[in-house]
Amino acid sequence: MKSNGVRTWQEICSEKREKRNNAIPLAWRIPNMETSTAKTNLLEVPSLSGILTENEIHITTDYDAVGIVEAIRERLFTAEAVTTAFCKRAAIAQQLTNCLSEIFFEEAIENAQALDKMRLEHPDRPLGPFHGLPISLKDSFKLQGKDSTIGMTYFVDKPAERDSPLITIIKSLGAIVYCKTNVPQTMMTADSDNNVFGRTLNPNNKTLTAGGSTGGEGSLIRLSGSVLGVGTDIAGSIRIPSAANGIYGFKPSSQIIPYAGQQSPVAPGTVGITPSAGPMATSMRSCQYFIKTIVAADPTIFDSSVLNIPWLGNTLSRSRPLRIGLITDDDLHTPSPPMRRALQEAVEKLTTAGQTIVPIRLPNVAENMGLTLDLFTLDGSKFTMNLVESTGEPWVPSVVRQGLTAAPAKSLEDYFRLNHQRNMAIAEFHELWLTNQLDVILTLPAPHTAVPFDQWDVVTYTALYNLYDCPACVIPVGHVSPRDVKDELFRYGEEDKRTYELYTGPEDYAGAPTSIQLVGRKQRDEELANIAVLVDGILNPSGAA
Amino acid sequence: MKSNGVRTWQEICSEKREKRNNAIPLAWRIPNMETSTAKTNLLEVPSLSGILTENEIHITTDYDAVGIVEAIRERLFTAEAVTTAFCKRAAIAQQLTNCLSEIFFEEAIENAQALDKMRLEHPDRPLGPFHGLPISLKDSFKLQGKDSTIGMTYFVDKPAERDSPLITIIKSLGAIVYCKTNVPQTMMTADSDNNVFGRTLNPNNKTLTAGGSTGGEGSLIRLSGSVLGVGTDIAGSIRIPSAANGIYGFKPSSQIIPYAGQQSPVAPGTVGITPSAGPMATSMRSCQYFIKTIVAADPTIFDSSVLNIPWLGNTLSRSRPLRIGLITDDDLHTPSPPMRRALQEAVEKLTTAGQTIVPIRLPNVAENMGLTLDLFTLDGSKFTMNLVESTGEPWVPSVVRQGLTAAPAKSLEDYFRLNHQRNMAIAEFHELWLTNQLDVILTLPAPHTAVPFDQWDVVTYTALYNLYDCPACVIPVGHVSPRDVKDELFRYGEEDKRTYELYTGPEDYAGAPTSIQLVGRKQRDEELANIAVLVDGILNPSGAA
Repeated sequence: MKSNGVRTWQEICSEKREKRNNAIPLAWRIPNMETSTAKTNLLEVPSLSGILTENEIHITTDYDAVGIVEAIRERLFTAEAVTTAFCKRAAIAQQLTNCLSEIFFEEAIENAQALDKMRLEHPDRPLGPFHGLPISLKDSFKLQGKDSTIGMTYFVDKPAERDSPLITIIKSLGAIVYCKTNVPQTMMTADSDNNVFGRTLNPNNKTLTAGGSTGGEGSLIRLSGSVLGVGTDIAGSIRIPSAANGIYGFKPSSQIIPYAGQQSPVAPGTVGITPSAGPMATSMRSCQYFIKTIVAADPTIFDSSVLNIPWLGNTLSRSRPLRIGLITDDDLHTPSPPMRRALQEAVEKLTTAGQTIVPIRLPNVAENMGLTLDLFTLDGSKFTMNLVESTGEPWVPSVVRQGLTAAPAKSLEDYFRLNHQRNMAIAEFHELWLTNQLDVILTLPAPHTAVPFDQWDVVTYTALYNLYDCPACVIPVGHVSPRDVKDELFRYGEEDKRTYELYTGPEDYAGAPTSIQLVGRKQRDEELANIAVLVDGILNPSGAA
Repeated sequence: MKSNGVRTWQEICSEKREKRNNAIPLAWRIPNMETSTAKTNLLEVPSLSGILTENEIHITTDYDAVGIVEAIRERLFTAEAVTTAFCKRAAIAQQLTNCLSEIFFEEAIENAQALDKMRLEHPDRPLGPFHGLPISLKDSFKLQGKDSTIGMTYFVDKPAERDSPLITIIKSLGAIVYCKTNVPQTMMTADSDNNVFGRTLNPNNKTLTAGGSTGGEGSLIRLSGSVLGVGTDIAGSIRIPSAANGIYGFKPSSQIIPYAGQQSPVAPGTVGITPSAGPMATSMRSCQYFIKTIVAADPTIFDSSVLNIPWLGNTLSRSRPLRIGLITDDDLHTPSPPMRRALQEAVEKLTTAGQTIVPIRLPNVAENMGLTLDLFTLDGSKFTMNLVESTGEPWVPSVVRQGLTAAPAKSLEDYFRLNHQRNMAIAEFHELWLTNQLDVILTLPAPHTAVPFDQWDVVTYTALYNLYDCPACVIPVGHVSPRDVKDELFRYGEEDKRTYELYTGPEDYAGAPTSIQLVGRKQRDEELANIAVLVDGILNPSGAA
């Protein structure tokens, strides 16, 4: 406590953390934490913890989101049983990787019971498309009465007055919300680390980052503490943690899924790159189901900024092979050995399956990435800096490293120029599609897998598709293998060398997932989802990697 | 010529005007101009001029755009016959009202001949949806090799390198382009007057303005020198001249019809209010046909800024009456007697037809109009001012009067704030739709009919729907009648009095068309078009007013 009676940032954060920790029932606390978490790979801990029943292990591991909805519909499980299972597993995940921000399991289970009761009393009433499905949420989404701290002390103990429009929709469709998940301070880095809650770990290998900004979701879903979460993405914030943790993530084009009414680290009315909300899940068909269900619910009613683009229910024409544009790297950063192998294997499988691969290159990457960074920092990040500095809390290392706060503020004239450059870049990228008659682009979500903490600097592989406002998704395809020996095959100079040398070999990176990224044409999210489900079936014929 | 050998603006303009005038064949020049144009109403002059054959009068007056397409399809007329008829009538219109900027009749007729020849040689080849239809274009659209002066001396003799994307599309669908039409200097006023070509007159009453900025189209189409033209609208530039001249005009939501690649009076990358391109025509079904045809042609391929919103081919449900929100005025400007009567009669006809009228009020009009003006002048109109002033040409009176050039430049911070205010205004307007469960809004396009030159100051009735980015269209419903006696029934103070007193009675305003405006929900252009065709059928049961 300061002399004036005002709490210090340390007090605010430690009280907030304590409240969160206390929301986990004693019976759900992991016994023998030290032994349980001795290994770097935490994936087996939940099933071995003794907290989950056999049935709860079955529910949380043997179904994806679509499967859960079907199972509840077919009365294999009640909504209560499903919600309880995921609450318990999320509680375990939280203790292992510090992935949660807000916890409201009790309320969630009550809501699930109410759903079950309603169904019993009104057996003929049609079930919502998310009936009984637990959905986890990135911390930025607002829930009435709960905080959205987005990793900043400033927002602690400022409960929301109303739900974000997307939450209103998913609840009305039968979803159960039960927790919110951790993000980086400012939400502008790829490390979900902040002074309020601390750092989220990667359950595949706890020495590596869980990614960000939707890192809590990535970690939670990988531990099966959730089958479906909602994230947001302005530079890779859905795709980076999906890749880092080895789950599926789909960044829609902007203004497809309601984004309004979230806690934001930037000033109201800020323009530049428009962020998207989208699903992260344990299967691609679940991502597709989520987007389809939201779009079919006419989200324009709930959020006046959503585009009136319908879901047409088209199926993919199979009369000809897909023309897949292959981008092997960004001309600046050489993919690390495991990622290079992942992409090469994907190309081989797709070719074997009869698809057509068309090698292409991204135009003007360095220039367009500079443009993207300028558009991210139009106000010189002043608004965000003021929020963080108002409480005296320090900057976390990943924010400092990123240098966002050193970017100069732009004038309105600058913005017109940047906007024009962006329109030209979009038109140029559009030409690339047309010239090559592409159906989809295949590339990597990053030049590397998850890396050690606070080292994820490269976002060209993701952020350019925000600049272009294209839908893009991540498909996990495997893990680092002993075959992925360290080499010196970087090709683009000093900065590339530094990034490339982050990969120190298969021992340090044991368990790190590999993945690929698919990119669709602007606002053709339905088409990309259809293609992604097809491609996933080819790359992961026996289910998720 | 200045001493340095550079042409003065007067020389540039007079040479340009002479070139345009010389593009009209001698045989198409109106004999006895003075006698022919003695009356204020010029509508009868084309048929009486002796220039058009009986068949040419028939073609140009007895068909709308859809009818022309059908007639050519059914081989009632060749494309050549149709194009020749409209070129001749456009030539007459030009001599009467000075409505054209660029004239290329010869080329158009050759293109029509080529279409006829192609059809003869390939009788089984499917015809484009615009096969043989002459379409006139606002001067801002670019055509390879032709100027787009948009009323500024600066742009004279700067022929375009390529067609605007929309022109590429309409040509590929079989349309014949044959002329471009006059606009105000800067395109930012409601009087199509500039130093290059002079002022366009209103053929209904040549003492009244033809409106703007797509004033040339309004005048040309009213004289049947075109059945379909393409305009643009950022504050009313399609709807104002439609109302002023008594034709149909449809301003789509932004980014529905390709807008890219036009000559612009503002800096590349300028943001604020996004303008729309859209049709002006002699029937509502022609406007609908134009939009449907363009959207069905997948304009996203040609212009990467177009939204991927399909035309679904839905028909209007007739199982319940429409809920029509009625906005009688803008709380600032009282409609003049003829406009008040027009709206009242429309309400009566719609009520009689069984539709439901729901009186509503626009929220915060003065504040939102201030916001709109701020968004129009983010750079303090500096870019435009520099263009005009670079040649030494003077400002035309309507630009001076409007005071756009006196607006201060805004900072990027200001813009964020304005953008936020706009998002809030859009959300508030959206609530108005939902709360009242509206299908459409019925209002006026202005508080008055066409007014004397350089007096059209009020754009709240149109510009707010650009702020809200809603589709909006104008339907002509009649003309000023001897019953519309001048009165003093203005209700909102001094500014209202000044506007209201522009109406000096039915004698001065003889022939001035009256009209109503329909507004749809954002990006529900297809729905608005369906409703507008229905409403037009009720208001104008025996065809256009």
